[in-house]
Amino acid sequence: MSTKATFYHAGCPVCVAAERTVAEALDRSKYNVEIVHLGQQKGRVAEAEKAGVKSVPALVINGQPFHINHGADLSVLK
Amino acid sequence: MSTKATFYHAGCPVCVAAERTVAEALDRSKYNVEIVHLGQQKGRVAEAEKAGVKSVPALVINGQPFHINHGADLSVLK
Repeated sequence: MSTKATFYHAGCPVCVAAERTVAEALDRSKYNVEIVHLGQQKGRVAEAEKAGVKSVPALVINGQPFHINHGADLSVLK
Repeated sequence: MSTKATFYHAGCPVCVAAERTVAEALDRSKYNVEIVHLGQQKGRVAEAEKAGVKSVPALVINGQPFHINHGADLSVLK
């Protein structure tokens, strides 16, 4: 069974670098990776917030939030 | 050929969570993952700093630094 991993971003340069490098490096045979652009999918900001995401880019694996560098605070995406 | 990925940490709780979840999720068939405890290997702090690491835990993939959440500043490990 694969583990759910969600990469939240907002299209910012910091986000793109993290997506291309970190999200890309996840083991797809074990993780079901979903990429969510919160700038385009504002309806999902609440879900990210609930998972503990404070800024983007962030990776939520197994419900745990990991903030990767810092692109933008979640508050500016609401 | 596998890409070099180095996970720098200092044994802090934030570091351990990131190691178990993010470093663990990397695709080992594509990435050669090395785990470095900077508290125990102070001789490698300079190398991390040179790669752009400002705090731990951090993951350096292909020479690019990605800070994952925030455990401790690199300066306290010198």
